[in-house]
Amino acid sequence: MSKNVVVTGANRGLGLGLVKELLKSKDVGKLFATTRNPNTSPHLMMISDPRLVIVEMDADSDDSINKAVQQVAKRVGTSGVDVLINNAGVLVGVDYTKPFKREDAAINFNVNCVATMVVTQAFRDLLKAAAKRHGHSQIANISSMLGSIELTRGSAPRYFVAYSMSKAAQNMFSKNVAIDWKPDGIRCTAIHPGWVQTDLGTSAAPLTVEESTSNMARTILNLHESHNGMFFDWKNDAMPW
Amino acid sequence: MSKNVVVTGANRGLGLGLVKELLKSKDVGKLFATTRNPNTSPHLMMISDPRLVIVEMDADSDDSINKAVQQVAKRVGTSGVDVLINNAGVLVGVDYTKPFKREDAAINFNVNCVATMVVTQAFRDLLKAAAKRHGHSQIANISSMLGSIELTRGSAPRYFVAYSMSKAAQNMFSKNVAIDWKPDGIRCTAIHPGWVQTDLGTSAAPLTVEESTSNMARTILNLHESHNGMFFDWKNDAMPW
Repeated sequence: MSKNVVVTGANRGLGLGLVKELLKSKDVGKLFATTRNPNTSPHLMMISDPRLVIVEMDADSDDSINKAVQQVAKRVGTSGVDVLINNAGVLVGVDYTKPFKREDAAINFNVNCVATMVVTQAFRDLLKAAAKRHGHSQIANISSMLGSIELTRGSAPRYFVAYSMSKAAQNMFSKNVAIDWKPDGIRCTAIHPGWVQTDLGTSAAPLTVEESTSNMARTILNLHESHNGMFFDWKNDAMPW
Repeated sequence: MSKNVVVTGANRGLGLGLVKELLKSKDVGKLFATTRNPNTSPHLMMISDPRLVIVEMDADSDDSINKAVQQVAKRVGTSGVDVLINNAGVLVGVDYTKPFKREDAAINFNVNCVATMVVTQAFRDLLKAAAKRHGHSQIANISSMLGSIELTRGSAPRYFVAYSMSKAAQNMFSKNVAIDWKPDGIRCTAIHPGWVQTDLGTSAAPLTVEESTSNMARTILNLHESHNGMFFDWKNDAMPW
């Protein structure tokens, strides 16, 4: 069975890496890579695999999301979407030892939480359609170890506080979807990609994009019922909330 | 040693109940009850205890928060604030099985997360001052069982999803403050008040405001170092993240 997959925020970093690694799998049918602006996503446009469809989507805009979903729907028909990977996210640091701008904290929630909720809702019908045909479908929310309340070591050294909060909130979302949408056959799992050499992770990170995403792609494509509502890292090891 | 205490969102519900119960303790020095509009807080204005100071504070406004902090600072002088209870919060339901308004989700984060961060930051100097004098000071963030990722049962029956997410995020904030501000002697603990008969909890709740807040007031006034960065319920029992 080939799986139709959607990856958000696919123009660079982990999203781009996931697209490349997912295309190495024969299990992947159509792969929709969303990006705010396809014209400024050269790495994505250089991939020549015929299964890849680049889709314009600005997760800040309901209208843009709806257009993207319609575009995907037209291509997949009644097969629906088997895997939605919510990868788009931001990290805006907040030094809360002194007065800070509310907007700097809020943007972490608006993008990593609210936009993720809106995108997930928008793909619900397509995820339900795939679940009806194939028994289940899967949402993978790209989370972070920084979102583990159990493991957090505080907001040093990069003023992670609001990002960490938003990722803990996103983890709660993952668990809620897993419970709320279970009757529809839609599963949801939070994935920690590891600390990766991306713009967000910086060059100090120990993992290359390839190391993280090759493992993540395999982990995501092999998620099963026992992973529903749980939190795993790129190597498929369980993470604490 | 008498403790100067600040309770936010004190015009009704748990905040009002906490004010009443805290005033029963001889350990409480000055008690500052913040409310958006003192003139529409009749229950607060009816309390005649001379230790109570009603302070106007709108947590959505940096200006209003700064004025409130100045007013508190003037009254406590170098004694500072020993206990800050971040109680103000909202629950706005979001049915994410169908399209929803982004603002309905976002308000949960803006009030329960961002405003709590701003208020906490604004009281930092007063909390540091108390810690310098008395060895430590304490922040108690009023959380919720609904914010426990471990315990959540999904967003039914009242579309809790965004509220639950915001409270999980707030729990992450509590743990971050506990770690980040430890060198300043400022402790931080998350408190689940129980399911209480308030506007938020509805009349279906098993606990009266008095049952919850009498226990919470005792729990909060007796928090010690081992509670730092942890999550407890009103009866002082540990909660999972």
